[in-house]
Amino acid sequence: MQCGGRWATRRLHTWRHRALLMPLSSVCVVRTRSYKTLTTADIDHFRSIFGDESSNGIVSEKEDLERYNTDWTRHWKGKSGLVLRPATVQQTAAILQYCHQEKLAVVPQAGNTGLVGGSVAVRDEIVVTTERLNQIHSLDATTGLLKCQAGCVLQELQEYCSSKGHLVPIDLGAKGSCFIGGNVSTAAGGQYFYRYGSMSANVLGLEVVTGTGQVLNLNYSPQPHLKDNTGYKLHQLFIGAEGTLGIVTGVALKCPRLPLSRQASLLACASYSNVLQVLDAAKIALGETLAALEFMDETVIRLVDEQYPVPVKTEDGSFYPYYVLVETHGACAEHDGAKMEAFLEGCMTDGYVTNGVLAQDLSQLQSFWKIRESANPAVAATGYTYKYDISLAISDFEDWNREMQELLSGLNVLQTNWGHVMDGNLHFNVTTPGIFEKDSAVLERLEPALFDAVIRRGGSISAEHGLGQSKNGYLTKIHDDKKIETMRSIKALFDPNHILNPYKFLPANRTATIS
Amino acid sequence: MQCGGRWATRRLHTWRHRALLMPLSSVCVVRTRSYKTLTTADIDHFRSIFGDESSNGIVSEKEDLERYNTDWTRHWKGKSGLVLRPATVQQTAAILQYCHQEKLAVVPQAGNTGLVGGSVAVRDEIVVTTERLNQIHSLDATTGLLKCQAGCVLQELQEYCSSKGHLVPIDLGAKGSCFIGGNVSTAAGGQYFYRYGSMSANVLGLEVVTGTGQVLNLNYSPQPHLKDNTGYKLHQLFIGAEGTLGIVTGVALKCPRLPLSRQASLLACASYSNVLQVLDAAKIALGETLAALEFMDETVIRLVDEQYPVPVKTEDGSFYPYYVLVETHGACAEHDGAKMEAFLEGCMTDGYVTNGVLAQDLSQLQSFWKIRESANPAVAATGYTYKYDISLAISDFEDWNREMQELLSGLNVLQTNWGHVMDGNLHFNVTTPGIFEKDSAVLERLEPALFDAVIRRGGSISAEHGLGQSKNGYLTKIHDDKKIETMRSIKALFDPNHILNPYKFLPANRTATIS
Repeated sequence: MQCGGRWATRRLHTWRHRALLMPLSSVCVVRTRSYKTLTTADIDHFRSIFGDESSNGIVSEKEDLERYNTDWTRHWKGKSGLVLRPATVQQTAAILQYCHQEKLAVVPQAGNTGLVGGSVAVRDEIVVTTERLNQIHSLDATTGLLKCQAGCVLQELQEYCSSKGHLVPIDLGAKGSCFIGGNVSTAAGGQYFYRYGSMSANVLGLEVVTGTGQVLNLNYSPQPHLKDNTGYKLHQLFIGAEGTLGIVTGVALKCPRLPLSRQASLLACASYSNVLQVLDAAKIALGETLAALEFMDETVIRLVDEQYPVPVKTEDGSFYPYYVLVETHGACAEHDGAKMEAFLEGCMTDGYVTNGVLAQDLSQLQSFWKIRESANPAVAATGYTYKYDISLAISDFEDWNREMQELLSGLNVLQTNWGHVMDGNLHFNVTTPGIFEKDSAVLERLEPALFDAVIRRGGSISAEHGLGQSKNGYLTKIHDDKKIETMRSIKALFDPNHILNPYKFLPANRTATIS
Repeated sequence: MQCGGRWATRRLHTWRHRALLMPLSSVCVVRTRSYKTLTTADIDHFRSIFGDESSNGIVSEKEDLERYNTDWTRHWKGKSGLVLRPATVQQTAAILQYCHQEKLAVVPQAGNTGLVGGSVAVRDEIVVTTERLNQIHSLDATTGLLKCQAGCVLQELQEYCSSKGHLVPIDLGAKGSCFIGGNVSTAAGGQYFYRYGSMSANVLGLEVVTGTGQVLNLNYSPQPHLKDNTGYKLHQLFIGAEGTLGIVTGVALKCPRLPLSRQASLLACASYSNVLQVLDAAKIALGETLAALEFMDETVIRLVDEQYPVPVKTEDGSFYPYYVLVETHGACAEHDGAKMEAFLEGCMTDGYVTNGVLAQDLSQLQSFWKIRESANPAVAATGYTYKYDISLAISDFEDWNREMQELLSGLNVLQTNWGHVMDGNLHFNVTTPGIFEKDSAVLERLEPALFDAVIRRGGSISAEHGLGQSKNGYLTKIHDDKKIETMRSIKALFDPNHILNPYKFLPANRTATIS
């Protein structure tokens, strides 16, 4: 396989720096010879799987392929010539059985809203999308157990559950297009993680199709239980596996009752220390009602304000250094309101908060979230954005940002920070204003120095976005050989021909060669 | 290997019923020929591992072995002639490396408080206890992240965390002697499961020694993160694996803040329907403060009352059909008290509750829990008890109990029901009053009919106690071949010589032969 044009330059560069363990994101990945190149006979076979509805099941026209080959960030572009859209578990299994047998590489795709290039092809892998596996099966009113297919859009699940008095325990900006199966496969976190817990906490069972095309019923049918200690918790392996072990087709999720009262405030702080003081005060004063606490810095608020006016400004219309969005969920509006008021009063008296607004109704509450959720599109509209998603001790955030300022000094970039401060999860973004193409000078300044800075502080280089093709090259820096070898063994167990999501997740090995 | 004496009778019986898939608990397990019989050279090798402190590390005197060979229930008795007590991870690894190499069978043991025979030898396996791995490393005041060795006693961890303003998110009757590593290995549930979540939700990282003696650092060092998406969630595999994949040596646990207010009430209900109505009312009225809701039936309350007086009785001193213990955890005593009062008032007005008491202080609250936690010892003191721990739809509990009454009709037994009704988790016990030896007539009536009744209702045959040697024979009834084969493959990956906890957890295979 040849790497041509633009890739060729980078290829030389990569060899020079190979000792630095460059991530796959910044190198040219050569299509490994062990994968078969798609033939017309293969396409005929897939037609036979779909039968009469082949036109729904198979996408191969160039213009139709575009959206499957480009992710939300538009940074990651695949070269897949074939998209398969199974509508049943049986079709999904038949596809993967055949791809396993023929050694055809596959990229499982959900809503394609990831930020690390996990859901698009790297070379010419076949895309298998779960978009037609979109049936909601049931919600048990007593236990809150939701069962649905993996291709259900998160927001549709939220609306369905809400209409029945329950809450999907995950929420994130991409809810309008991400799929629950993608949320499971990326162990998505989101804004209510602190209150409602991780995917590992809430997923009770899964139905998956492995890399050999085997359907595994992992506590999924006939019904999962809140408590079930009858074997290894195999479904947990597929949470956050980014489609490298199998394709999730069915999800059983524990959904709590819908809170009867929601309170929210949008607060301005004069310093990052004040943000931490607000966080501490919220944990104490709001206690079990605390549902979310997000922070955004002045730079990102300024960008958001251009598209969506922010209601908390100084008297002369300028911005405060930090903004905090606090939300509570509770069973009693009177108690929750009293808690929120006492919390705000305390924060103002103690000088932690300089200014702020309290939502008077659900619509105002949603407008606060609109601000928070506009952070991603606002930076994306400003210029090409290098996106990082890290875990750090929250006391380290400010110092880390300072180090990044030094690292990037002299470059015309905007640094923006926001995220789930309560979880120690910082979304750190670097944008080149007005320039919408990747700038290798910026990237080289950022990587691997940025990851080294995270690792030096004992942080995680991926808090919630995952590894995809952007961070897998760094795994050898954060996990020892034994852990990586164990992960490889697990991979080999479920996908012995390594057909699923190659060149990603695990560091390059025999199935993916770095040129 | 010969099965002599008492076993011989059962052996004949077992062959007759083999088609019924009798559990290993009721059959004679033959020591598989592939395991080596312990030699003096082996003991010399273990001495070399412990060096100067061999006398602390090795137990081989008959009277000293007794407590390691007998579990809490006294139903399960091992025949181990050697107990090893590593004080470090390195010693644990050296022991398992040697046992792997020599094919010496091992039973990992924590607090030995399990109820399914998981922590004692079946034949002459070497016991490796974590009782000397009992160091608490740290508790991060901001994140509530607790790091400790696996042999820490749960209650000691609770006291340590409590002194620093945090709560260990698990609590159960055996807290005074169970170890946190055992809680992890059995995916223990307990009374606060509904509020604080499962072990899968709360364990952020583990250090384990696999069946080959390899030490795996699974998000344990240098520090785990609340959010960390950098690879397969391997630590989840060891949660609930009952020591069949490795020995857990270090645990990183997410501990929430200690609630500032605790409220509790002990209520009497006239019917099981009333119990369900109380549960529904509690979820609505107590909302996010609801921490626990336990139920006990009249028969078990009567037994408890003999040892520990129950404060809620009828005017003539007799008992009500059902008792419910409700506890709330919150941040504001005034609000929580108001919620509890409104809940109780509603329950009384609606006739769900016939009588009850509200704890006035922590000591009264603890006295309510003393009643609940006396259920196990009270039935054990009454006679030999056949203990079952199942998940069912809560609407099925009463009907299921009725079926069990019919099943056991004509036998002189006491049926007692209690448990975590909110989680659909019923502890069902059958006791032969005054008879402290197992009665095969009772057992044969119960099994496998009882398990069949659970399976027929789509329930789980083990909600939280695990499989051990008492339920592994039923796995083929509840999991399909593909799932069991996948579990076997996972087992083979971490313990290729099958030295860890043989004859348990998985259905009998080539490493354990049913005679």
